[in-house]
Amino acid sequence: MGFNTTEGWEVKAARGKKIQQDSIQKQWLLPEDKLPAKNRLNVLDVPKESGLLSSTELSITESTATKLVEAMAAGTWTAEEVTIAFLKRATIGQQLLNFATEFMSEAAIARAKELDASFRDTGKISGPLHGVPISCKEHIGFKGRVCNAGFVSWMDFVSPDDAYVVQLLRNAGAIMLVRTNEPQSLMHMDTSNNITGITLNPHNLALSPGGSSGGEGAALAFKCTALGVGTDMGGSIRLPAAFNGVYGLRTTAGRVSGIGIKAAGLGQESMHGVLGPLAHSIDDIDLFMKSILDQKPWVVDPSLVPVPWRPVDAVPSKITVAMLADDGIVTPHPPITRALKVAKEKLVAAGVKVVDWKPYETEKIATMAGKFLFADGGRSHREVLEESKEPLRPLTEWVLSRYPDPMTVYENWGLNYDREVLKGTYHHIMQQAGIDVILGPAYPGTSDQNGTPTYFLYTIVWSVLDFPALVFPTGLKVDQIVDVADFTYKPRNEMDGEEHAKYAPEKHVDAPIGLQLVGKRFHDEELLAIAQVIEKIIKN
Amino acid sequence: MGFNTTEGWEVKAARGKKIQQDSIQKQWLLPEDKLPAKNRLNVLDVPKESGLLSSTELSITESTATKLVEAMAAGTWTAEEVTIAFLKRATIGQQLLNFATEFMSEAAIARAKELDASFRDTGKISGPLHGVPISCKEHIGFKGRVCNAGFVSWMDFVSPDDAYVVQLLRNAGAIMLVRTNEPQSLMHMDTSNNITGITLNPHNLALSPGGSSGGEGAALAFKCTALGVGTDMGGSIRLPAAFNGVYGLRTTAGRVSGIGIKAAGLGQESMHGVLGPLAHSIDDIDLFMKSILDQKPWVVDPSLVPVPWRPVDAVPSKITVAMLADDGIVTPHPPITRALKVAKEKLVAAGVKVVDWKPYETEKIATMAGKFLFADGGRSHREVLEESKEPLRPLTEWVLSRYPDPMTVYENWGLNYDREVLKGTYHHIMQQAGIDVILGPAYPGTSDQNGTPTYFLYTIVWSVLDFPALVFPTGLKVDQIVDVADFTYKPRNEMDGEEHAKYAPEKHVDAPIGLQLVGKRFHDEELLAIAQVIEKIIKN
Repeated sequence: MGFNTTEGWEVKAARGKKIQQDSIQKQWLLPEDKLPAKNRLNVLDVPKESGLLSSTELSITESTATKLVEAMAAGTWTAEEVTIAFLKRATIGQQLLNFATEFMSEAAIARAKELDASFRDTGKISGPLHGVPISCKEHIGFKGRVCNAGFVSWMDFVSPDDAYVVQLLRNAGAIMLVRTNEPQSLMHMDTSNNITGITLNPHNLALSPGGSSGGEGAALAFKCTALGVGTDMGGSIRLPAAFNGVYGLRTTAGRVSGIGIKAAGLGQESMHGVLGPLAHSIDDIDLFMKSILDQKPWVVDPSLVPVPWRPVDAVPSKITVAMLADDGIVTPHPPITRALKVAKEKLVAAGVKVVDWKPYETEKIATMAGKFLFADGGRSHREVLEESKEPLRPLTEWVLSRYPDPMTVYENWGLNYDREVLKGTYHHIMQQAGIDVILGPAYPGTSDQNGTPTYFLYTIVWSVLDFPALVFPTGLKVDQIVDVADFTYKPRNEMDGEEHAKYAPEKHVDAPIGLQLVGKRFHDEELLAIAQVIEKIIKN
Repeated sequence: MGFNTTEGWEVKAARGKKIQQDSIQKQWLLPEDKLPAKNRLNVLDVPKESGLLSSTELSITESTATKLVEAMAAGTWTAEEVTIAFLKRATIGQQLLNFATEFMSEAAIARAKELDASFRDTGKISGPLHGVPISCKEHIGFKGRVCNAGFVSWMDFVSPDDAYVVQLLRNAGAIMLVRTNEPQSLMHMDTSNNITGITLNPHNLALSPGGSSGGEGAALAFKCTALGVGTDMGGSIRLPAAFNGVYGLRTTAGRVSGIGIKAAGLGQESMHGVLGPLAHSIDDIDLFMKSILDQKPWVVDPSLVPVPWRPVDAVPSKITVAMLADDGIVTPHPPITRALKVAKEKLVAAGVKVVDWKPYETEKIATMAGKFLFADGGRSHREVLEESKEPLRPLTEWVLSRYPDPMTVYENWGLNYDREVLKGTYHHIMQQAGIDVILGPAYPGTSDQNGTPTYFLYTIVWSVLDFPALVFPTGLKVDQIVDVADFTYKPRNEMDGEEHAKYAPEKHVDAPIGLQLVGKRFHDEELLAIAQVIEKIIKN
């Protein structure tokens, strides 16, 4: 690192942009005359409208990973045609959304051919993820490729090995298709950096794809890949999932290996960053988790807990869902409130026991989270930023300015202790009331205007407690007629006022509404099983 | 806490001594004429010689927990006679060793009677630990009883509840007999404090029982209880086990609940303090772990990992043992070197694959450990000490003076990261070489003179890496003829010189020789299963 210190930041950054540009298969770009109108916001249908994808290619790219594997196992589709279909769609996606940092097309197609040859020879698929095209957030390392984690100065860092999760996915038959964009410093709830730029949300190009796994969120929404790998410190998988209308799981820490991930501030362990999937269905999330945990990754990575992916034989016939309608600090926007109301009505109608979740010490936990993340006063991040002298993006500026002062270790210990007490209390409240899951917002609203999301309390509480949390799309989106803004609303506090002011239905056209479902620590499997039941009821 | 601040430290401390003294059943004390001679060092046989215990009581107290449960299940012994036998022996033990802080005789006998009544009614035992008398290190809380953790100022703290591990043991049928002594600050490898004083080693009263679970070590050695619960941050179960010739397990973190434990510096998570058993056999260690983990304690305590106690069906026919003969910093004393040599010869003769373990970054890890423990510059400990103004014991003074400066959180993060890399490297070395366990010293020598043990590198390395480690007695003790001191030895460094100077066979008469066996992280079960095999070979 740092051997190119005489190189200005713009030169370093340009190298990253060049890697991105060089990796694009130009033959699959939309020609000028097929580009959407400049004022068009929702571009989800462009692939279909373009005529560049065959009907088979459209079917392939609109399939879940689970269905793709079934089709390849049945010999209906080959891994090569699946890979090419997704590459074609992803190339258009890149053109419209700038979600990728680097395509790995040649390697992907070569691997697909190998899988097909093996299938021809044996009649069997090469693993539970046979031929599934996967995207990975950029800071997940690939051997011999630059891994910058959104920092210009790390344009000099080349990963010595594939991240372990990449190896596990490959072992399961997956095809690594493309690496995806993330924000400078990885600490935004939005996706922009000085290397590959800004990623857009395909539901509405004026809106943020969320962050920090925003490239993943946009990729999945546009169906550029069938499964994605993100990371989540305070909401970085869940917010992109919510903002882009896809599924995303914050796993319990210690289940998915972090070997080979590059980031500033590693060694901060008071609140764990985790890896997890973004996907097109709960089945796909389950498939991802099962595929990697069935390989017993803890045999190789001793930082993992040896907890297999445990089959959930039957969801209890009586589940209890606690509804978190409002965290008591920032009132959710009308679309979220409506979605929660609809969900509650349907759950009750279906005979599910629904109780209210009373927010507990939310502000204390949120304050704790900020202190944990920036307990070094932001020094770990600043040092990497200062090395290249790249300018700070506004949200980097914002977040670092909020936590300028380091904590002492003494204070950190005290907060760790408090966190454990809170973890116990939350768990106890759930146990006592027989609550299986907590259903609530992932964010006060749907996605916000690009560059503006800043409220993290709905997600970060569960990060501090290390509870698994799934974001799923409700199938609803912002309704221009029903979801009117309340101009008479009196904000409770400054943050509430700021968040309230961000909402107007016309600024959130077509924004999908996702919700967050939280389970008990290490109950990732049960969370998904219950989510299946709840989703079926809500979407019925 | 602190409501008695006008009370001088001596008054507070005296209250603790009074609790201890009042709890002793005076009728079971040795009368003057049965007290051992003043110059007698080894008091292990005093109970037998005294004539105060019947032959049945001697048989009971010399049984393992496993055998006790069998005998009670067969109706051979009642829980009440078991309890009284141990109480009688423990009273003598207290008189000679000062190992206890508080007996709980009435409650123990009442509980024993309940167990017996249930057995009479049902013909069945009330759990896998039915009637097993257990000792607990003092800082493990008991409802309504003072829990001082070795600090005079905490004489004002009364535990609101039983520690969760106590509840689990009781659920399994165990009888909580006595609470045991620990050092001031819990940070000595010896056992003395300003409340209940100094604990002695029954093998040789001039020697230390080790620490910080020294009361446990002495209790088990004298057979005051059948099982004990200790805690281990850097060797605090293992050193007392080694020094007292009993078994002790440092469990992998996250397996035994710490709810209800009182200590300074909680919230320090870079190196985990853990709970674990001290016992009279490996079977008993296994029984302890299985009895509590079969209750799925993670359902109640969300800080635990949901890893059950997994049966080891068969130890691999080919095990590989790596011998750690010397950490490269302090050369083990002649008795330890001899025991390792004997072990190696027997293992080789038995066809076990034995390889050498090359110490790896020991000094770096030890430095790291000290920085982790006192990353706050000792403030957490000093504050508690200063509250009562009790004088510092010499080993408290020693340890706090070594780490006067707090780390920054930034430095702490860096060391956390380094620790994870080292954990991976150690694991990888074991995996690559097919090493199942590492056999080596727990300490450079056998126990040292009271008040003097200070070298923690043989144990603390495994604490930093969070690998499980079992100390077991080899059945050997210091041999006055064979284990001669080497007067020609040239120390490698100052510490080596200090440790070398502590050895002379005549200062370690009758000291038992224990060794440490280390397994992979979370492989506690396999460690015990392999230890069974190794012990059989070594003791054959």
